[in-house]
Amino acid sequence: MAGKRVLAAGKFDILHLGHIAYLEQARELVGDGGELVVVVALDRTVQKERGAPPVFPAEQRRRIVESLKMVDKAVLGYDTTDHTSIVVDIDPDIIALGYDQQTDMDALEKLFSENGMSTKIVRLEKRVADGLCSSTVIRRRIIDYYRENGTPRS
Amino acid sequence: MAGKRVLAAGKFDILHLGHIAYLEQARELVGDGGELVVVVALDRTVQKERGAPPVFPAEQRRRIVESLKMVDKAVLGYDTTDHTSIVVDIDPDIIALGYDQQTDMDALEKLFSENGMSTKIVRLEKRVADGLCSSTVIRRRIIDYYRENGTPRS
Repeated sequence: MAGKRVLAAGKFDILHLGHIAYLEQARELVGDGGELVVVVALDRTVQKERGAPPVFPAEQRRRIVESLKMVDKAVLGYDTTDHTSIVVDIDPDIIALGYDQQTDMDALEKLFSENGMSTKIVRLEKRVADGLCSSTVIRRRIIDYYRENGTPRS
Repeated sequence: MAGKRVLAAGKFDILHLGHIAYLEQARELVGDGGELVVVVALDRTVQKERGAPPVFPAEQRRRIVESLKMVDKAVLGYDTTDHTSIVVDIDPDIIALGYDQQTDMDALEKLFSENGMSTKIVRLEKRVADGLCSSTVIRRRIIDYYRENGTPRS
């Protein structure tokens, strides 16, 4: 199989095994000589989607993601809810969507046909990843400890 | 320079750029054909040192650390405060200590001389790593948000 440029994306705020499982699956689509490019959401985008700012600022999340074995390059997202512009710039062969990731598929399909792009969207399956795989659960765990003990973990 | 087996160690509970900077410096000591082996502290060891359990269980922390580019292998620590036994088993050429990491240097030096080991201990310098580089500060940031908003980040 010829190498593919695969695009993955996310917030990656507090790295956990769910992120690792997602990026490992995306990596499997790359093939020889391809590359995995990961888009890391800006703080403003996280704030908009989650209603709260991330724990780690975007550039720190980007550097952590780029330190992972399966990732060739991690870049910051654009300051827009329209995902088409960054897709045009990265021009991936494949967009790897996590099993629970939302995106405007119609807008992307329209973009591809209008621009004669042969990009494919691959929806990854939910892979069993043991343990803490949700940023929400991780934050809650930290807060619960605080509430029960009246003090943070030192 | 011939390759070296370098040992690094830590809790790695919520990965941050301080961990990355530490492991990058440890990696620089490895050379061609060497390897970086990272010992990840057991939950019981974290509990003992910090007075509170880690957020992530040990095996999850181990797998995240082993996903990093600069790490060849991550292994769980032993259930003892005596660090000499795991050092004997891994038999590193170099132990890379973070700028603020505590260990019983005397016990290790004694071990090396008694066993005719040529292991060197290298104390790494504090490298400027911007941003959130302390698990304590990260947890406090999450709790402060909760206290100010009466709700966790969703």
